[in-house]
Amino acid sequence: MDRQAQALLERARRGQLRAIGRLLTLLEHPDERSLQLLEELTRGEPRAHVIGVTGIPGAGKSTLVSQLIAEYRRRGLRVGVLAIDPSSPLSEGSLMADRLRMQRHATDPGVFIRSLASKGLLGGLSLAALAMVEALDAFGYDKIIVETVGVGQADVDILDVAHTILVVTMPGAGDDIQALKAGVMEIGDIYVLNKSDKPEAEQTLEFMKFALEAGTVSARHGWMPRLVKTSAVQGTGIPELADAIEEHRGFLEEKGLFAQRVEDRRVKLARLYARSLVDGIVEEIVGERRAEILETLRKSPDPYRGILGLVLEELRMRLQRL
Amino acid sequence: MDRQAQALLERARRGQLRAIGRLLTLLEHPDERSLQLLEELTRGEPRAHVIGVTGIPGAGKSTLVSQLIAEYRRRGLRVGVLAIDPSSPLSEGSLMADRLRMQRHATDPGVFIRSLASKGLLGGLSLAALAMVEALDAFGYDKIIVETVGVGQADVDILDVAHTILVVTMPGAGDDIQALKAGVMEIGDIYVLNKSDKPEAEQTLEFMKFALEAGTVSARHGWMPRLVKTSAVQGTGIPELADAIEEHRGFLEEKGLFAQRVEDRRVKLARLYARSLVDGIVEEIVGERRAEILETLRKSPDPYRGILGLVLEELRMRLQRL
Repeated sequence: MDRQAQALLERARRGQLRAIGRLLTLLEHPDERSLQLLEELTRGEPRAHVIGVTGIPGAGKSTLVSQLIAEYRRRGLRVGVLAIDPSSPLSEGSLMADRLRMQRHATDPGVFIRSLASKGLLGGLSLAALAMVEALDAFGYDKIIVETVGVGQADVDILDVAHTILVVTMPGAGDDIQALKAGVMEIGDIYVLNKSDKPEAEQTLEFMKFALEAGTVSARHGWMPRLVKTSAVQGTGIPELADAIEEHRGFLEEKGLFAQRVEDRRVKLARLYARSLVDGIVEEIVGERRAEILETLRKSPDPYRGILGLVLEELRMRLQRL
Repeated sequence: MDRQAQALLERARRGQLRAIGRLLTLLEHPDERSLQLLEELTRGEPRAHVIGVTGIPGAGKSTLVSQLIAEYRRRGLRVGVLAIDPSSPLSEGSLMADRLRMQRHATDPGVFIRSLASKGLLGGLSLAALAMVEALDAFGYDKIIVETVGVGQADVDILDVAHTILVVTMPGAGDDIQALKAGVMEIGDIYVLNKSDKPEAEQTLEFMKFALEAGTVSARHGWMPRLVKTSAVQGTGIPELADAIEEHRGFLEEKGLFAQRVEDRRVKLARLYARSLVDGIVEEIVGERRAEILETLRKSPDPYRGILGLVLEELRMRLQRL
């Protein structure tokens, strides 16, 4: 690893937020240096508890995450946050990280907040996010909160490697049969009914309880999903939520699942690196041999198979040279 | 191609909606048969005008598309619609196709509507959508409308191959400086201010005009983006919108861009096929050699580079056997 990266790594290990930020930026690019960095970062024992937070738009995810950060700080824990923004500015999510930062944690050295948008990420959102989870773990953050809007393949990939998944909903939204059918209720370890000070809260809560007990929701590895009421704006229910999260952590450790999810996460990271590298070569080939590809498209009796053959043969040769 | 696919193809060419539906399902799977099908489908001259429709949630995209379908039907044109649903049930978009279908076109043989969700699509959403565009083109649909929520890489990929892109917005949303900065205004050929019967409409329209004239928006290949006011619910502005779309089509044809975008689309399709095939092999390798990968993760001094080496070498060997 080059000297600059080495120096950065040392400063990041001492908790310097700017160094951490710059290091995460290096990890956005899946190249030789980021691989070396990653290997350096994953040498120690993984310790961090990775918490995925997702849920319907408008349920108050950001405010809830902000309250959860405050609760963890009261408990003496360091918190890293990755806010995954959808690639498009059309979405409501694009300012998630800014909202979080503004809320009060900007000056707290025990909190690191980073937003991640797919724009400009060569290896894709999932790869960058997973690498950053490793980095925040290595830098000693006790809790790593990954907030996603839950839309798109990247979000699924990322939630997939969390230890504990929170699904945030709000009164009036949870009794939507369609949502249940579509599987919203399938991924959570903990369901959070936020804005529970609203009048329809009791009804939604009853409905969610029913759904949980009826087994409409899946019990991942025998964990019966919890249901927690909060009002992030009023600050109620937050300690109870943090307790439920700890309970789930205890469950994972008892079953040996805590360490196993870290391994799954790292295998996935290696796989994403491989895919990103290979995809990059394919793009390169198609770019360089565009004229030939167009010719095949225009004239060959089996153009798509012809192009596939051309690209795969070239890929094979380039792999040989790697 | 096998007999069953051949028979299906013939019935689809005669416009039988069920046969078309089943054929599109075959195209969801990137295998030898779908490649052959695709080659069959792309033999003729491409004729369809592909129109991408995107925009902020709540702007009334589905109602607008429904009105546009009706307008095209009045003009004697056949319309195919692909409604791209985000993979997650957390999003508002998941019922787009149902909403469209219910609105009135269900029994019209000149309209084909298909929704596409990434769930279960082996080769990914972009690949399936692009293949389906080729199919609808081959089956003689004059207009192919692709509706997306504009979130995620797949949406970007798909909009990328449209001839004409409509960005739908509504009063009160367009004057969001943040949206402008973030680049919402960069991709549209035509900006549609829907719900223009609302009181704030004039103000938003002025703002959008200003943005267009100030060159905040890009003029793709010299086309000055149009601005059209509609009220999809009341049915106003729809003929004007259809006219603006025709105007853009005329512009593309004049510049030779119409045919060029079809070629770009087909090169992209070939590239996505190649990537999907290679990604599939990488997944397979990681699955089959998981024990070895875990061992490398646990013990190697350079685990990630070790795993990459292992996977790429195996990939090279498998490509040789293809």
